[in-house]
Amino acid sequence: MKFVIIGGDAAGMSAASKAKRNDDKLEVTVLEATTDVSYSACGMPYNVADAGRVMDDLVVRRAEVFREKQGIDLKLGYVARAIDRGRKKVIGVMAGKDPFEVQYDKLLIATGARPVTLDIPGADLPGVHVLKTLYDGRGIKDYLVSKKVKTVLIVGTGYIGLEMAEAFHARGINVVMVDILSRLLPWLPQEMAGVVEKELGDKGVEVHLGVKLKSLEQYGSGLRVFLEDKEFLVDMVLMATGIVPNSELAADAGLKIGPKNSIAVDKSLHTSDDDIFAAGDCADAFHVVTGNRVWIPLALRANRAGWAVADNVTGRDVKLEGIVGSAVFKVLDIEVARTGLSSSEAAEAGFDPVEALIKSRSRAHAHPGNQTIHVNLIADKKTGKLLGGCIIGKEGAALRIDSLAVALHAGMTTEQFFQCDMAYAPPFSPVWDPLLTAANQLLKNL
Amino acid sequence: MKFVIIGGDAAGMSAASKAKRNDDKLEVTVLEATTDVSYSACGMPYNVADAGRVMDDLVVRRAEVFREKQGIDLKLGYVARAIDRGRKKVIGVMAGKDPFEVQYDKLLIATGARPVTLDIPGADLPGVHVLKTLYDGRGIKDYLVSKKVKTVLIVGTGYIGLEMAEAFHARGINVVMVDILSRLLPWLPQEMAGVVEKELGDKGVEVHLGVKLKSLEQYGSGLRVFLEDKEFLVDMVLMATGIVPNSELAADAGLKIGPKNSIAVDKSLHTSDDDIFAAGDCADAFHVVTGNRVWIPLALRANRAGWAVADNVTGRDVKLEGIVGSAVFKVLDIEVARTGLSSSEAAEAGFDPVEALIKSRSRAHAHPGNQTIHVNLIADKKTGKLLGGCIIGKEGAALRIDSLAVALHAGMTTEQFFQCDMAYAPPFSPVWDPLLTAANQLLKNL
Repeated sequence: MKFVIIGGDAAGMSAASKAKRNDDKLEVTVLEATTDVSYSACGMPYNVADAGRVMDDLVVRRAEVFREKQGIDLKLGYVARAIDRGRKKVIGVMAGKDPFEVQYDKLLIATGARPVTLDIPGADLPGVHVLKTLYDGRGIKDYLVSKKVKTVLIVGTGYIGLEMAEAFHARGINVVMVDILSRLLPWLPQEMAGVVEKELGDKGVEVHLGVKLKSLEQYGSGLRVFLEDKEFLVDMVLMATGIVPNSELAADAGLKIGPKNSIAVDKSLHTSDDDIFAAGDCADAFHVVTGNRVWIPLALRANRAGWAVADNVTGRDVKLEGIVGSAVFKVLDIEVARTGLSSSEAAEAGFDPVEALIKSRSRAHAHPGNQTIHVNLIADKKTGKLLGGCIIGKEGAALRIDSLAVALHAGMTTEQFFQCDMAYAPPFSPVWDPLLTAANQLLKNL
Repeated sequence: MKFVIIGGDAAGMSAASKAKRNDDKLEVTVLEATTDVSYSACGMPYNVADAGRVMDDLVVRRAEVFREKQGIDLKLGYVARAIDRGRKKVIGVMAGKDPFEVQYDKLLIATGARPVTLDIPGADLPGVHVLKTLYDGRGIKDYLVSKKVKTVLIVGTGYIGLEMAEAFHARGINVVMVDILSRLLPWLPQEMAGVVEKELGDKGVEVHLGVKLKSLEQYGSGLRVFLEDKEFLVDMVLMATGIVPNSELAADAGLKIGPKNSIAVDKSLHTSDDDIFAAGDCADAFHVVTGNRVWIPLALRANRAGWAVADNVTGRDVKLEGIVGSAVFKVLDIEVARTGLSSSEAAEAGFDPVEALIKSRSRAHAHPGNQTIHVNLIADKKTGKLLGGCIIGKEGAALRIDSLAVALHAGMTTEQFFQCDMAYAPPFSPVWDPLLTAANQLLKNL
């Protein structure tokens, strides 16, 4: 049987490797448009932060290993252009010119996502970068050095924008951030977003919210930035204005499309064609809390979905229940973590959300190194069931969110969560873990 | 109504405070044998570690605050000697001599636990210490300074022994540990216990396992220590040989006794007398995984049970489902965390335990500061249900255990746990959190 995979990063290479482990007789072909496979995209900001490291440190497994050790037919520079479902063929061009056709029995679309940039004058000037692929990352690192970048404008204040603010700051570069949003991280309660904003300010990152970038112009070796009511000069611009799924191949082939133009898949990762799967940043997922389809492209789901596809292709029957949207990032010295629904997402999904917002400590009251930690917990008024939450602080926010994620998967009520026997020792938490303190407050509010 | 509490630490003062918050008309009397109330006993090793701090930094709330701000009749130096259930009175002596009787409508026994020491010659010499109360802690700190202690023998390698090894080490004191147990932390898989043993060795802590302490003798200002086949000199001895519940009052009053001589309570914290509750280190609890009564005296349960008693006394109806035995401690640079059943406990409880033991990393593969993390997960072969686990590593072990604790409370299977959507970013974990990697391995082993 021929298993063909379009896309050679997290989902694609996870699927290829696992399929071969499951069944070494399977013919596995991967068509990758670029020359990079299997790298830690999420590690790019931390790599950019460190002038002493090269981007290729982020490669998890090299192409030769996939080919020689694992027997995967990995084709680099193969750009898929169409899927002919009738003849079960992927059609495209290789090395930028030569056409190819590859026959499949089972196909996985793992084409990922791509950055969207603002459609403004100057968006295509040489100093304007995006960060999605290793190629982008190399470009940014080279540019920082070759142009002796001293000031960067980051457009967008999402995960990537904030992680890159930390990266540039670590290299001693002045960072200016702009966003059309009138406040930072709108899914965080105002007070918690304020902590992040203060951290950026304290470290000298300039943040302009509720402003519109009008255009960019070349100016010497740098760029002149025009907002609605002001202009300034920078050496480089990073557009961190979001991503969209690479779902055109699937849509053109008539496959069912899900939220935000992602490719719709069932719990076994089948698209609307039984012989075609989709996984990774191009595909949707079920949200465990709402049961609805969502598009929340993150690394764990991509890897997990890749494995599940491999299992299903090799005759196992694996179903993924879905995701709860757990995410975490670090911005300067602050950890920001979320899982489940925000209050407004909960209301939209038909719940009656009740919130608690507490401030506690990361360690016991008299323990040195103690940091403030903020926890926001959300439950449904009618059932008491937990719906989501977020945690921020200088330590202990990132790992704590997983306890809440597990509770969401288990469908726990606030009372059940409050009764959980969490571990305590002075270096790690107060006797009542901040999550329990938040649950206790939420019980009062419910 | 008169609510009388015997014991003024975690469980007792939590109950007193919450009862007053629930109903400020309630007459709340606390009989505390010592002159210390409401302190963080678990913080003592960290306080001993720091010569610059005084033990009283660990006091959470002072007696005057309970009396003046909260209206609690807090009686210090009141030693309860008997409970007359017929007349509903607590009988005892105050200030070491004067008899007293206190009438109750509802009574809480929160008498805690006390250290057991070895019954060997010399166990009562002046240089031999235990650590349970603030009084003990002050004694140790004074002794370290006044006797210029350079070498300490710690008898016992449990939590307290290991935490105190770290504390003495932090003060530049040589530490020798002995235990009759033939291996360290027998509830940990051998490989994981070996990591702790190596850490102790690397930091110069001498550990003798499988040896019996025969006797102690005064020798100058220090102590001569006699093992079966060797002897040596130390300046001080810490007996960290376990604790037993202070349940004699309850037993003498004819109340039902639970495992290891603890006081048996139901889910509402009632003893076998409907008007008498017990909470804290003197009382038992139900283990959520087995449903059996257990005695696992830890701080969170004490605080939680105190609150639950207060709620039940003031007319609310609160039931505690029980504990999963989550515990964590730090020894030098290693975090050691556990929850649920060990493999042998699981077998004893009638399960058919299957284990996984994996080594992973605390951060993404290319992220600086990455540490090894070991995870052991245990499930029942028949049902796949998770039964327990432990985690150790230089970072990220302590907080991760709570995710597993939540899963145990939820009664999750290994498969359900493996499907949990945990948060990922390079500074905090690999894409597959070590817990998920362990669950995946466990699924293969099941």
